[in-house]
Formats: sequence, structure tokens, C-alpha cells
Amino acid sequence: MDETSRKSLELHEQLEGKIEVVSRKHVETREDLSLLYTPGVAEPCRQIQADYQKSWTLTRRSHLVAVVTDGTAILGLGDIGAAAGMPVMEGKCALFKEFGDVDAFPICVDTHDADEFVRTVQLISKSFGGINLEDIAAPRCFEIERRLKEVCDIPVFHDDQHGTAIVVAAALLNAIKVTGKTMGQLRIVINGAGAAGCAIATLLVHMGFGNVILCDVNGIICEGDEGLYAGQEALSHVTNKKHEHGSLADALKGADAFVGVSRGNLVTPEMVAGMNEGIVFPMANPTPEIMPDKAQAAGAAVVGTGRSDFPNQINNVLVFPGIFKGALAARAKEITEEMEIAAAYAIASIIPEDELNAQNIIPSALDKTVADVVAKAVAEHVKD
Amino acid sequence: MDETSRKSLELHEQLEGKIEVVSRKHVETREDLSLLYTPGVAEPCRQIQADYQKSWTLTRRSHLVAVVTDGTAILGLGDIGAAAGMPVMEGKCALFKEFGDVDAFPICVDTHDADEFVRTVQLISKSFGGINLEDIAAPRCFEIERRLKEVCDIPVFHDDQHGTAIVVAAALLNAIKVTGKTMGQLRIVINGAGAAGCAIATLLVHMGFGNVILCDVNGIICEGDEGLYAGQEALSHVTNKKHEHGSLADALKGADAFVGVSRGNLVTPEMVAGMNEGIVFPMANPTPEIMPDKAQAAGAAVVGTGRSDFPNQINNVLVFPGIFKGALAARAKEITEEMEIAAAYAIASIIPEDELNAQNIIPSALDKTVADVVAKAVAEHVKD
Repeated sequence: MDETSRKSLELHEQLEGKIEVVSRKHVETREDLSLLYTPGVAEPCRQIQADYQKSWTLTRRSHLVAVVTDGTAILGLGDIGAAAGMPVMEGKCALFKEFGDVDAFPICVDTHDADEFVRTVQLISKSFGGINLEDIAAPRCFEIERRLKEVCDIPVFHDDQHGTAIVVAAALLNAIKVTGKTMGQLRIVINGAGAAGCAIATLLVHMGFGNVILCDVNGIICEGDEGLYAGQEALSHVTNKKHEHGSLADALKGADAFVGVSRGNLVTPEMVAGMNEGIVFPMANPTPEIMPDKAQAAGAAVVGTGRSDFPNQINNVLVFPGIFKGALAARAKEITEEMEIAAAYAIASIIPEDELNAQNIIPSALDKTVADVVAKAVAEHVKD
Repeated sequence: MDETSRKSLELHEQLEGKIEVVSRKHVETREDLSLLYTPGVAEPCRQIQADYQKSWTLTRRSHLVAVVTDGTAILGLGDIGAAAGMPVMEGKCALFKEFGDVDAFPICVDTHDADEFVRTVQLISKSFGGINLEDIAAPRCFEIERRLKEVCDIPVFHDDQHGTAIVVAAALLNAIKVTGKTMGQLRIVINGAGAAGCAIATLLVHMGFGNVILCDVNGIICEGDEGLYAGQEALSHVTNKKHEHGSLADALKGADAFVGVSRGNLVTPEMVAGMNEGIVFPMANPTPEIMPDKAQAAGAAVVGTGRSDFPNQINNVLVFPGIFKGALAARAKEITEEMEIAAAYAIASIIPEDELNAQNIIPSALDKTVADVVAKAVAEHVKD
């Protein structure tokens, strides 16, 4: 066991849980009891019965997100089961509170059946103001998110998809400023066509990021390829505009940007050297597709990873606290792509133009001012 | 709207939720982030995957109860729906924390289908250390509790049944001391044969409380009666030992104790006068079956109600925080009747013998020392 693992285990044993449910009002007197509980509490109940919208002001709902998993894709550990996924869910909830002052509560749904998962989350959704889906395996996660969006009247957001896409987009927006590249003329290669890769590709295409080329283990994905699942098939029509075929190495020739959401050490210095002053985001955890020093030595213009021990950490924590904070504040019924794009621009805007450089394209993952900026931008883009 | 309702509504609007989910560790440094979240958090996940029991020490589970309703029997308001029931559930959660230092989280399950309800709670149960069922209509509540106990590996406890039964038993234990009555010779009349009434009857019979007579709107329930549901039918074999028939008034003739979990003003002074120095617990809320002053004027020896504005408030808050605290501390897989009886005796024991009198048979509902006494007694009766 490495040092970080050992220390983390020790901290978990000592903490007895990373979150806690507390009371917002102490109960000391008979009157406290009669107002917080019976008989007084009957009145807020009646008010909500008469007007469902009042559940937003008379309960904790408007501050509360469920962080829900089925345990099928926990970190890089795979399908370890719902109970074993709970430390990640609790950690996510702690980050929601620490960075966004959003209450978040972890729920593991102990089923591999998408129908059951959807129905379970739907049936408990009126206890919450938003649903953050977490660490659910692809392609099931696409169906689950789509169906939950249909049946829930609160925002449903699969962070592994959209949180990742938004923070990558934010980093790219600043990286092209640093490199003087033009958004519409970029050749961007994304390696990894699972939940994160597909969401990144979709968002970048919709934001107008030039020619996006999506690769999976078999290389470049091209319109007409067989064996694509629904999300990939849809993407094949809007990515890879020149219908290229070939390997990841082929895709990277002359590319302006690389985004890796795949596995460690898949990208060689030669591939980076063949790029066009490449923006290189090898985000695989814990081992990036290429180590930052190697990428830089090979000529990369800007490098960002998922790791905290290198510059430009591209981390979802810059996204999810703020996007839910904004959605809850505006009582959004959904998180639209417009809100996601607003979040990406908001995150990018936090680095002042005169401080932008190859080592500084994205705010620190520890910057607690980010969420409010994101929340404000997101709330402004909520449709009535 | 009365004064209490108005003040409660105002408090609810101002509080924006009676509970809050907070982080137990602040995240300020890169190391915090790496230990609470990735990459360190992978190790606790692996540990739980390898040994499910570690979910009790590496997550918040062992401090955490779900307070779950379907919204079908919220207070006296009836079936007002899952969302409208949330203020009661949140209030209950606040009391769990205030009185037992037990984290509790409210979940409304938005279905009237018992199968769906059971399956939903089962699927989310690994996120919790216990399930407190709340305000679910009879007779559905019996089936739901029975089936959940079968499928969950954590305690499942319908407080409206068992919490009420335990606190009534505690009050009765002390009331017979005050009146010099003998447990095994009591004639006890319970009016109301729903969730609470049936649970009270069952517990009192199993504790050895003489002859228990259960009445519903049609009067005394007798073995062989038609139209009884399963729980009532089972009780008909162990209650009403002399196979009496008749009205509530008939049942009360010569009775030693009355427990009302029915509706206001059903008991007359004449009925109380015909009792044998009666112990009278008219617990209907907000209007008791008979007002305490009237019962006393008619000759009642001891009177207790559910109300805080009279002596001897017989309130579940004396039970649920402690019973779950004890069950969680001992990692109980269920709450057995033995644990319930231990809780009743523990609550009764809190009033010192020399302070026992007709005005003082039960601790104050505001006494925050009760839960630890109950928890200790309950934990001692958990089977390995």
C-alpha cells in the first residue's frame, strides 16, 4: 500500500464518515418541539400539499443534491459494488459542501438493472433539489441519464460526463488564447470514447471547436463504423469531418489538441512531436497518457493533467459545486447545454488575461471562489 | 391559522430546512483533496470491496438512519403525498440528531405500491445503518415492515408502531408502581386498532401485562370476528382472554388502564368513573380521547397524554433516538422485541423511585439524557 493510500485509510478510520447530518435549529424548549415538530409542522405540510412549489422553501430541498451511484465504475476500480463505492460518494458530498456550500447526500443503489436504478432514483427524487450521477459504467450511464431527465422535475447531471466536458472546455478556451490558435480551426483528438470522451466530444462540437476526432481502442471512430453504441454513433456524424481512418498516432499527426480520458502511457513523445504546437491534456488517473515533462520535452505548447502535482490540474471540482449551486438557486428543472457552456466560459474567465500562460490556464482545484462565479453564470442561463 | 401554525410556518421559511449535510473535514490543501478524494479514497473502497463489514468503519453508515415515508399517513393529515410529508421527516431527523446524536436523513418514496416501496428502500439500504419507517398507513405498514426486515441486513423500525408501544409500556410500568397495581392482573383497554394500537397490544401482551383488550370503531375485538386484517387477527388470539363482546364503554368497566390511540373526545367522564382507579392515557393528538382535567375529576389515578402542556407527556422522542443509537453502536442487524422491552424498562427506570408520583411517571420529552440510557440498555440486548 502506498503512502497516500495508507494515510487515506487512516483518515477514513479516524473520521467515521466524511459527512454528517446536523440539525439547523436546536431543540431546547417545548415551543421548539412544537414548532419544529408536532403540532406546528402540520402547517408547512399542508402548504406543500396545496402548492408543491413550496417544497422549495419549506424543506432543505433547494440546497440539496443526491450523489447517486450503482457502484459499477468506481474510480478506476471498476464494478466494485454499491457499498464499496460509498467512500467516493461521501468524498464527493464533502467537496460539494466545501466548495459550493451545497448539501449533498450519498446514495448507493444496489442494482445492475437500469430500469430498477431509474425507477429507484425517480421515486426518491422529491427528497432532493438535484441528482448528481456518479461512477456509473458506460454505455448504461447514457440511458440512465436520459431516462432520469425525462421522469424527474429536477436537474439530473452525470458528472463523469458533463463535469469533465465542462472543465476540459474551460481549459481549452484558455489554452487557445495562450497559443494563439483559433477555435473553429482546431483539430482536436480525444482518446477514450466512454462516458467522459463522448461528453467532451459533444460539448466541444456544440461550442464550435473545429474538427473533433474521437478515438477508442480501435483507433479513429468514423461515420459508418460498425459496433458503435448509440452515443458514439450519433457523434460519428458530427466528428471526424474528413472521414479519416487510422490509429491514435495517425489522428495526432498535425493535431492542435489532445484530450486523453483513456489509460496511462498510450501517447509517445513522437506523437506529441508530430502535433501542431500541441495543447496536450493527458487526463488519465493516476498515470497520464504521457507524463507532462515528456510532453513538454517533445514540443507540447500547453500541458494539463488530472493530477494535483503538476500545473494546470483539470479537475471536475471546478464544475460540480458551482453548476448545482447555480441550478438550485435558480430552481432549474434541468441543466441544459447552454448552462454547461456558460459554466465553461465562467471557469476560463477566472484567470485574468494578463496572468494567462502555459503554466496557468485553469484555476486551482482548491480555489473556493470558483463555485460562486460558475453558479452566477449558470443561474443566468436558466430558462424560466 | 392558529398561532403555533403561523409561527411554525414562519420558522420553516426562515430556516430553509431543519437539517443540513456538512463536511466532517475541511479541504484546504492538495493533501486534503488527495486523502478525502482521489487518489487516496480508492483504498477505503478496496477495503470495503474485500470486506463488506468495513463499510461500518470507513463510511458514515454506523451513525446514519434513513427516515422513510410514502406520505400516506402524515400526522393526522392522511395521505398528503411524499413531498408534503417532508417537513415531518426533516423534523424527525432534527430530533434524532438533537436527542441521540444520530445522523438521520429524510427520504420520501413517491409510490403507493408496497412492492415498489419495499424494493426502493432495499436498494438504497446499503447507504445507511438503519431504516426508520414513518407515517405509513395501516395495514400496508405491517407488510412493508415485515418484508423490509426480511430483505435488509440493517434494523428496520416503524416508529409509529414500536416507538409508541415502547413509550406507552414505559409509562405503564411506572403507573402501576404509583397505583400499586400488579402487572399480570391488569385489565388494559386499548382504543384504536391501527398501527400504533396493534403494536402496543402486542408489546404489552409479550411483556406480561395481564388481559389486554383491543377496541376499534366497532368496539371490542374478539377471536373469530370477521373483517380483521392479519395483525388484528393474530392479536385476537392473545388479547381479550374472556372473549368479551361490546362497546368501548363496556370494555372500560372495571378496567385498570386505558390507552387511546384513536380520536378526540371518545371517552366520557362516566367511562373513567367506571374504571378501577384507572390509569388513563388518552394519547390522540391534538385533542385527547378525554381531557386530563376531566379524567382526573372522574377519578382517574394517573393521566398521561401526547401533549406537552399537561404532565406525563408520552412521546416517541423518548424512544427512537436511543433505540437507534444503541442498535447502531452494537451494529445490530435488527431491532428485536427483547431490545424494545429493554428500552421500555430503561425509560421507566430514569424516574427515581422516590420521585415517582401520579404527575411524574415518565421523563420529560426534552430530557437529552434519556437517549444514552436507552441506547446502553438496547445495545446490551443485541444478539451477536
